[in-house]
Amino acid sequence: MDMNEKLSFACDYAKGAHPDILRRMMETNMIKTAGYGLDEISESARNRIRKACECERAAVEFLVGGTQTNAVMVDALLKSYQGVIAAETGHISVHEAGAIEANGHKVLTIPHQYGKISAGAVEKYLEDYYHDANHEHMVMPVMVYLSHPTEYGTLYTKAELQAFRNVCDKYGIYLYVDGARLAYALSCPENDVTLTCLAELCDAFCIGGTKCGALFGEAVVVPEPEKIPHLFTIIKQHGALLAKGRLLGIQFDELFRGDLYMKIGKPAIESAARIRKALLEKGYRLYFESPTNQIFVVIENDALKRLGEKVEYGFWEKYDDYHTVIRFAADWGTTEQETAALIEIL
Amino acid sequence: MDMNEKLSFACDYAKGAHPDILRRMMETNMIKTAGYGLDEISESARNRIRKACECERAAVEFLVGGTQTNAVMVDALLKSYQGVIAAETGHISVHEAGAIEANGHKVLTIPHQYGKISAGAVEKYLEDYYHDANHEHMVMPVMVYLSHPTEYGTLYTKAELQAFRNVCDKYGIYLYVDGARLAYALSCPENDVTLTCLAELCDAFCIGGTKCGALFGEAVVVPEPEKIPHLFTIIKQHGALLAKGRLLGIQFDELFRGDLYMKIGKPAIESAARIRKALLEKGYRLYFESPTNQIFVVIENDALKRLGEKVEYGFWEKYDDYHTVIRFAADWGTTEQETAALIEIL
Amino acid sequence: MDMNEKLSFACDYAKGAHPDILRRMMETNMIKTAGYGLDEISESARNRIRKACECERAAVEFLVGGTQTNAVMVDALLKSYQGVIAAETGHISVHEAGAIEANGHKVLTIPHQYGKISAGAVEKYLEDYYHDANHEHMVMPVMVYLSHPTEYGTLYTKAELQAFRNVCDKYGIYLYVDGARLAYALSCPENDVTLTCLAELCDAFCIGGTKCGALFGEAVVVPEPEKIPHLFTIIKQHGALLAKGRLLGIQFDELFRGDLYMKIGKPAIESAARIRKALLEKGYRLYFESPTNQIFVVIENDALKRLGEKVEYGFWEKYDDYHTVIRFAADWGTTEQETAALIEIL
Amino acid sequence: MDMNEKLSFACDYAKGAHPDILRRMMETNMIKTAGYGLDEISESARNRIRKACECERAAVEFLVGGTQTNAVMVDALLKSYQGVIAAETGHISVHEAGAIEANGHKVLTIPHQYGKISAGAVEKYLEDYYHDANHEHMVMPVMVYLSHPTEYGTLYTKAELQAFRNVCDKYGIYLYVDGARLAYALSCPENDVTLTCLAELCDAFCIGGTKCGALFGEAVVVPEPEKIPHLFTIIKQHGALLAKGRLLGIQFDELFRGDLYMKIGKPAIESAARIRKALLEKGYRLYFESPTNQIFVVIENDALKRLGEKVEYGFWEKYDDYHTVIRFAADWGTTEQETAALIEIL
Repeated sequence: MDMNEKLSFACDYAKGAHPDILRRMMETNMIKTAGYGLDEISESARNRIRKACECERAAVEFLVGGTQTNAVMVDALLKSYQGVIAAETGHISVHEAGAIEANGHKVLTIPHQYGKISAGAVEKYLEDYYHDANHEHMVMPVMVYLSHPTEYGTLYTKAELQAFRNVCDKYGIYLYVDGARLAYALSCPENDVTLTCLAELCDAFCIGGTKCGALFGEAVVVPEPEKIPHLFTIIKQHGALLAKGRLLGIQFDELFRGDLYMKIGKPAIESAARIRKALLEKGYRLYFESPTNQIFVVIENDALKRLGEKVEYGFWEKYDDYHTVIRFAADWGTTEQETAALIEIL
Repeated sequence: MDMNEKLSFACDYAKGAHPDILRRMMETNMIKTAGYGLDEISESARNRIRKACECERAAVEFLVGGTQTNAVMVDALLKSYQGVIAAETGHISVHEAGAIEANGHKVLTIPHQYGKISAGAVEKYLEDYYHDANHEHMVMPVMVYLSHPTEYGTLYTKAELQAFRNVCDKYGIYLYVDGARLAYALSCPENDVTLTCLAELCDAFCIGGTKCGALFGEAVVVPEPEKIPHLFTIIKQHGALLAKGRLLGIQFDELFRGDLYMKIGKPAIESAARIRKALLEKGYRLYFESPTNQIFVVIENDALKRLGEKVEYGFWEKYDDYHTVIRFAADWGTTEQETAALIEIL
Repeated sequence: MDMNEKLSFACDYAKGAHPDILRRMMETNMIKTAGYGLDEISESARNRIRKACECERAAVEFLVGGTQTNAVMVDALLKSYQGVIAAETGHISVHEAGAIEANGHKVLTIPHQYGKISAGAVEKYLEDYYHDANHEHMVMPVMVYLSHPTEYGTLYTKAELQAFRNVCDKYGIYLYVDGARLAYALSCPENDVTLTCLAELCDAFCIGGTKCGALFGEAVVVPEPEKIPHLFTIIKQHGALLAKGRLLGIQFDELFRGDLYMKIGKPAIESAARIRKALLEKGYRLYFESPTNQIFVVIENDALKRLGEKVEYGFWEKYDDYHTVIRFAADWGTTEQETAALIEIL
Repeated sequence: MDMNEKLSFACDYAKGAHPDILRRMMETNMIKTAGYGLDEISESARNRIRKACECERAAVEFLVGGTQTNAVMVDALLKSYQGVIAAETGHISVHEAGAIEANGHKVLTIPHQYGKISAGAVEKYLEDYYHDANHEHMVMPVMVYLSHPTEYGTLYTKAELQAFRNVCDKYGIYLYVDGARLAYALSCPENDVTLTCLAELCDAFCIGGTKCGALFGEAVVVPEPEKIPHLFTIIKQHGALLAKGRLLGIQFDELFRGDLYMKIGKPAIESAARIRKALLEKGYRLYFESPTNQIFVVIENDALKRLGEKVEYGFWEKYDDYHTVIRFAADWGTTEQETAALIEIL
């Protein structure tokens, strides 16, 4: 429950962690281990992730947050004069305060459709770049950044990811997938992109913990580790190496014990589906269809004001002078009671 | 106890957190709060720190780790062409993988004595710089970086800090103190540098959590907040903004409940004193005197080999072909039994 | 004449320098002067520029090239977490290989109309930024970058510049004008933006030499020098400080002797006007109206092939599958014979 | 002659260029060529340098200045987390205003002897680095930076360079030689390091123009071009690509016409030898022996004051409270009369 007693669907990182994680943290609290992720728990977590990805030789590293993870991985894969292609709505394009540029790399944006870009648009971008007589005066594009689910909660299909891979292979560039909300894709019936699929198609990707049941933490997977030598030092240089690295190990070791991570997003997907159905029944207009844990509604401003007295929501964008787009986000811990309470209010 | 059952005095960040912290984390786990440190618990922690520093108007921000904190704060205070003066043994000089340089700033090193530099040496550096006809071709020094305790466990006195402040004022430059192990200074009888004193003399300083009872976290204090506008965005750009910022708030709210932080280092100081005494009694040679939780011993290589079978220690440096300097580190949770066990082994 | 004997209107930096410049360079060749622009000739050039701008107290510095100048000045005015607003076609946005990002700053692009942006669009951008609840997670916009003439040869009016100034004042941000082709504006009848006007309205601007009669060189003007302390060191850090700085001094001292710079673009403007007139008479289609030394023509691909055998032109962009947009550029040294020869060919 | 009529031996970049260069610049002034070094004159210059280095496949690029060249080449060869080993007196260590750090790389300094370092000291540094259990927390050294002649005018021998090469091969790191004053080595009887030798032993090196007869310009040679893909774009990103690149081509085409560059330093070497001899005869004390165009003298402060009224010299450093170390620099254009005049004054 919200501290200030108001129902909250504002975001999916407002709570703490899955109980199993806290329990393990308690159990291991006074054990002494090696620092910097060199401990046995972290190694166990790495192995569980490798197994879940069906990629025994992958490098797996744990970082604390999403912006940090993107900044480190883009910097790790790009040379100083290279840039990364992303949707103009991509997290790295807008909401990371210039963390990519802080490391000297340009984010090369292309238009999106509800958070998604297409392999065709990327191919066109690359064609235009190499056909431009002045391309050596321009930032060299060597990576495609995707988020799955996207910032709009939409999903890529496996076929779409394969198409990106093909374009990347054609031009010899990297494919990176930001899975900050990956658990919500994995629990979503519409999704056909598995961890195995990501390990097959990506040069690197991350598995989100912060929004998916952990206190904090993202697991980076590099299926072919030789692509990023000295990743440990790169992480350290970015100030992203956690001294008590086992705290990340513990969290991912629990998330990947059994199939917890594969199903942890299910309550959120079910809640979101119920909310969407209720909204449509009550005559609300959805801004667009998105199948995961986020719901985007176009709402009349006066109605919004009344709603705001009873529930916390996320402001998305101004729709017109009379309407606003808002976001509800369910999470791994959303209860049926909370969902019912929200529907009651709507 | 060590997972692999061996006594460990290798470092002071091998365990988890003080029980009060874990308890509070459990209690608050399912509460929903605002993200990014904008929650009420973080605000409470800020206020407790302000009070402990006797500086109501200070900006207080929480970051995850030490290298990150130093990188953010140096970058926040320096302009692109400016550098920071530090001991050649300073953490930023050696063991942060170039995190300062990654942001474009040069670390300008001066010789140390057991981790300490003197205000006189800094003044000399600045004099030489400004007297050099070519100084506009050189990196402009605008900050002094100190650690307290230093990387060698040594301490500055209040009078020494005041002397640094005077030099900084004379040249219009910043004084920054890295307090990654500050709790061990505050619990040390030899120490006369209080939090109030730091708030009076520094432009910014950090209060270490990671090595001082927290799972992770450093609290940055800026006594005159107008010196660093937009610190929030700077933190975000560095990938250093924790989504569930309250996790940092919880830890520092507990550490600064009552006088916990002031006394949390005491067991370590007492353990270290006992170990030092025992070492001298048994004929060992201390590398140098350091009054806090770290002990540096010159040990014959064969003896070291035998020791290593029973206890984990930190390698410090090669002394000569026959001797090595090692470090023992006690921490806030070191028990009398552990201390006795180590002394028994020595 | 072109080395390979073909008529060339490909760009405006294909020749050497105005004869007065080379003469002065010969005369002064064996004189010894202080380096780094600290010589008397550079000081004379600075004073002439100050006088031409009616701004006695301006700082004037000389740099070698355009990309370098933009990178240095943006970095000099921005803090590490800040960005610059520019047209998506701005030179800094596209054709500087990420030089702005290399220094950690994001170029925040807005749509253009033939190279121009509007003060209204900038105001909208700033309003949206400050109204966005997440704006502290985004790059802070603190500068507007304009080019005059633009990359499309179009011009801003004094009234338009004043409108930008008003928006900048409203939000407390900088206005920077890139005058790489400024001489062609100053010689253009449509232009009402004088040097005095730039000095009044801009926080900094540059006066192009490379494309305007010099061998190389851009003069940076900062009307209120206290806005950029230590500009000399910033230039040096960027590798942009010319050892024999007098070479830049000589060139700008000649360009600003009498009113040479004010009229040096005239031959180009007259040539371009004649070419435009001839194109229209011969039934060609201009891509858009631009009043300065560049002419943009939509040309059928087969006709272009024939044209390319007799004259060098600049490729601008693909128009459709059957047409191409090309650019002719006249320069300060274009002769009436060259113009006649081109018209003959068309 | 000095503009202010005083004899000047203050530095070796106070004059313009060798007459052949200015003549060629005049001859080619109104020719139109391709920009950015893609012209035929630049290609001719590249070929002459390749021939002089006996390395047909070398990449040769022309940059404007020394600091710029070092910054570009270090950044081109290093990854973001890597550093460069240099003498603590190296130009990149002290007098480039942090240009290396501005690109994110740390300069790892080792002690010098009159500007030189030894292969043994570098090997020790690398051994210590790799033996340090914490080396992954430190900046990874992957390049050795040497200057030849050094900032002190001293020379490496071919055997010494070979020893550096061996250490670099052993550790898989780069050897880069900064030849800003290379002509003065090549004209020096003590020197046995030829261009061929540099091409054989270095991963990259630069041939100085600015101090060696050119108006400005440094030629970068990369014997195995595949070591630096996209060097053109890297140069552009650094703001170091000269629009009228042929100006650099012209200068190096003249310097490498016949054996001009091999002998252009001879007048300076002869002048310096005469001055050294005269100094010793008159009882002055040389600070140390250096065989090239720079002379370092320890001089009593009152005598220096008198000397300063008649001749411009370079301040080197304070020797003690009563003496100063000054530098005289002869250059390619120093005449016998100037040398005689200086000796007369001494």
